[in-house]
Amino acid sequence: MTSKPSIGVEGAVALIDANRLEQFIERIAEITEAGPGVTRLAYSPLERRAHDVFRNRMCELGLTVTVDAAGNSIAELPGVAEGSSDAVGTGSHLDSVPSGGRFDGIAGVAAAVEVARSVVESGLPHRRPWRFVAFAAEEGARFGQACNGSRAASGVATSAGIAGLYDNGGITMAEAMASVGLRPDRIDTAAWASEDWHGFIELHVEQGNVLETSRTPIGIVDVISGSSRVMVELVGTASHTGATPMHLRRDALVAAAECVLLCEQIAQNSQHRGTRITVGKLDVEPSSITTIPGRVIFSVDVRDIDGDRQRTTARDLLSRFQVIAKERDVDIDIQIIGDTSPAILPTRLVDLIAAQARAHGVPYRIMPSGASHDTQQISKVTSAGMIFVPSQGGLSHVPDEWTSYQELALGTQVLLRALYALDLA
Amino acid sequence: MTSKPSIGVEGAVALIDANRLEQFIERIAEITEAGPGVTRLAYSPLERRAHDVFRNRMCELGLTVTVDAAGNSIAELPGVAEGSSDAVGTGSHLDSVPSGGRFDGIAGVAAAVEVARSVVESGLPHRRPWRFVAFAAEEGARFGQACNGSRAASGVATSAGIAGLYDNGGITMAEAMASVGLRPDRIDTAAWASEDWHGFIELHVEQGNVLETSRTPIGIVDVISGSSRVMVELVGTASHTGATPMHLRRDALVAAAECVLLCEQIAQNSQHRGTRITVGKLDVEPSSITTIPGRVIFSVDVRDIDGDRQRTTARDLLSRFQVIAKERDVDIDIQIIGDTSPAILPTRLVDLIAAQARAHGVPYRIMPSGASHDTQQISKVTSAGMIFVPSQGGLSHVPDEWTSYQELALGTQVLLRALYALDLA
Repeated sequence: MTSKPSIGVEGAVALIDANRLEQFIERIAEITEAGPGVTRLAYSPLERRAHDVFRNRMCELGLTVTVDAAGNSIAELPGVAEGSSDAVGTGSHLDSVPSGGRFDGIAGVAAAVEVARSVVESGLPHRRPWRFVAFAAEEGARFGQACNGSRAASGVATSAGIAGLYDNGGITMAEAMASVGLRPDRIDTAAWASEDWHGFIELHVEQGNVLETSRTPIGIVDVISGSSRVMVELVGTASHTGATPMHLRRDALVAAAECVLLCEQIAQNSQHRGTRITVGKLDVEPSSITTIPGRVIFSVDVRDIDGDRQRTTARDLLSRFQVIAKERDVDIDIQIIGDTSPAILPTRLVDLIAAQARAHGVPYRIMPSGASHDTQQISKVTSAGMIFVPSQGGLSHVPDEWTSYQELALGTQVLLRALYALDLA
Repeated sequence: MTSKPSIGVEGAVALIDANRLEQFIERIAEITEAGPGVTRLAYSPLERRAHDVFRNRMCELGLTVTVDAAGNSIAELPGVAEGSSDAVGTGSHLDSVPSGGRFDGIAGVAAAVEVARSVVESGLPHRRPWRFVAFAAEEGARFGQACNGSRAASGVATSAGIAGLYDNGGITMAEAMASVGLRPDRIDTAAWASEDWHGFIELHVEQGNVLETSRTPIGIVDVISGSSRVMVELVGTASHTGATPMHLRRDALVAAAECVLLCEQIAQNSQHRGTRITVGKLDVEPSSITTIPGRVIFSVDVRDIDGDRQRTTARDLLSRFQVIAKERDVDIDIQIIGDTSPAILPTRLVDLIAAQARAHGVPYRIMPSGASHDTQQISKVTSAGMIFVPSQGGLSHVPDEWTSYQELALGTQVLLRALYALDLA
């Protein structure tokens, strides 16, 4: 068989359609809790409804779809070459943070659906099986730990490991999974075998403003930040705001305020350049105008592209929280709720994607990702790469998250080229 | 008529009973929302149920009970002297903060009920009418402004003035009042006329630990702190905690943390000795582990026994909040939700109560009140005094709030003596 890749892939690339990408993203955005933006939490019934939409589209295209024990939906398009069972894959996730946007994760699944449609409709011949994946439970907002579906795929997640993860309502991840028909007890069966995979490329919105400010339509990720996450509980003494003198107070909120400022200070000093530390969640009890706060619980998210610095910073922070608590005579309890190493993505894939961007005639830049991604986990199983498309204003995890559908279509075209090049490589 | 006050009042004082005080307080404590401690908010149906209990007890004793437009319940026992219509009064409030205790306010109403019973059952002759009052809506936790019932009694509250007060759920005070059958539109009719009053003495739990640490059973209040209260809203930009570099952030929570620490710092410096500043309520949005806080709303409660210093401190604080917001490029909006002047209580009443404590053979100390009280408002209408009984551990506005019933009974005995002395004065 004499393949004509340049003609064949051009035909498929020409079918990539911004309107259809928009229709898919709008359809998924409708599946949300009430309130601002999109709320479709990890292992919720709403997340499963989004997976159903993905499965139906893929089935309409004639692909076979399976859902694994961890909730990942995987659609497969067989290849033409005999004996080439190691697949080329693409995909992203369908869950969201609370009051998040419509692009984070969904953009990459929309791109996967659009690539599948273009390949099927153009009849593009490809050697290997192509797999299109909607990962489950990528966001760490509900259970602290991020990338749960892809962690299962990479063999990192275990039934024992997820036992300690629970949400604000005290629901464990295993309970949440079981309640939507998944199998937390069999999560090990979701692990991918390296020999089944040739490589994987995820498209995602950048979620920062590097591409926008440099007017570059394509980012190619070379390293993905890791994150260490903790919940800190400070317990002082609630009492009357008028009757309690300043020097007799054990105010949990004032202690928490010191911790919040310390996070910023450490992230900004020159030794930690590149570290990003955020207190995103903070709850005060009893939260009354006339009562000194007796209890505060807050989250700390430490991100870094350097794994050693990430963990050293987290340890340093926690020991300094202890000092603040001791000085203020406030009790402190710290729980580690997530820990993910940074991932360095293989140069081979960075170069492969870059070559396809050049072939497509679009500028690109090679850049790190501050956010975590499923690719971080998948890179443990197979060669993995990532394509970023611009986020307007650099906004993400908010209702205003936006990427133009033209830019998403452009990224999807580069993705299709890169997957095809990978198929041949 | 030759009165024999020393014999008569001893008989009534001997009837004051710790068990009955306990029964009343326990009965009222049952009237609460679910959750820790007692939650019986200002102008809620639960508060009105507590007023119904008060009214029924007073009616059983043969007293006439009226409820005014602002929800204050007033029970009257006529005096024996012809033409002496200027009353002696006592009482406190029946509402609570969220997750508060069972003594704050209720202790003073229980004491009033017990005094009424002792006077009725002993047949103690008194010249003037005695009035027993359960004030409405003393706590500022719901609407920001404290002492709403007594502000109406003092003629300070007006329909126009309460129009801008609303709770967390956006319910205005007027709506809340109307929903429990009160008349916000006629609140001016609740104002007391000075000529109808001879004096007023409130018993209350201290809510601090001055009496406990000095092992003194009785406090006599000479000055009540004022309070200035504001709600501060900071609006930055919510975005992804991984993808957003530190120097591009507009983190509303970090800005709020600076404000919280500034409050403590100002309250603790030597120029502000005696000022108490608290951020009791603080809400973060969207409150997700992986999203930079875009919006924070917090309350600031500034208390002082010096009215000028109270207002200067509040103004200083607000202008420094503006500087913090500007430096961090965060939008700020400040709303004043309460402002009450300190009250200096007349020496005549402090001395009168002190003389009765000595006559009863109990140690006392003259002290300021850090908390606001209905007496603060009532002192605008008539001579007013306050008796404090000890709070265990100095705790108040929390479920653990406690006062021993023996100490409450002792305070009630001194209260009865003082009311009787005031009746004769």
